[in-house]
Amino acid sequence: MVETKMLNVNGMSCGHCEKAVKESVGGLAGVDKVTVDLEANKVEVKYDTAQVNLNTITETIKEQGYDVM
Amino acid sequence: MVETKMLNVNGMSCGHCEKAVKESVGGLAGVDKVTVDLEANKVEVKYDTAQVNLNTITETIKEQGYDVM
Repeated sequence: MVETKMLNVNGMSCGHCEKAVKESVGGLAGVDKVTVDLEANKVEVKYDTAQVNLNTITETIKEQGYDVM
Repeated sequence: MVETKMLNVNGMSCGHCEKAVKESVGGLAGVDKVTVDLEANKVEVKYDTAQVNLNTITETIKEQGYDVM
């Protein structure tokens, strides 16, 4: 099943941060789309629950150095 | 002659920015050392004036998207 989740992510401050999140999460198998809103501290992820779970996505964001609320 | 200059650089917000400045300026021939102080908005560059001039250094920082004051 394809789901879209909006995550609150703190600590992203610039275009490099946006790119780091987009590329790391976007590189996970099963992730279709990643949208980052720097000003709102939001990351929207569209993913296939048969291939990847939300925990893996949040851990990937944390590994990049950001807090997922 | 080897000189060390302290530049005021605005817009660097995170470790990615620091890395972008260090790597771009540090990659110039004649640049010996680049130190970035994110909180103080300062970049210190040690360079050989026979190989590179300050204008090239400031332009390189600007190309990365930051303002050199």
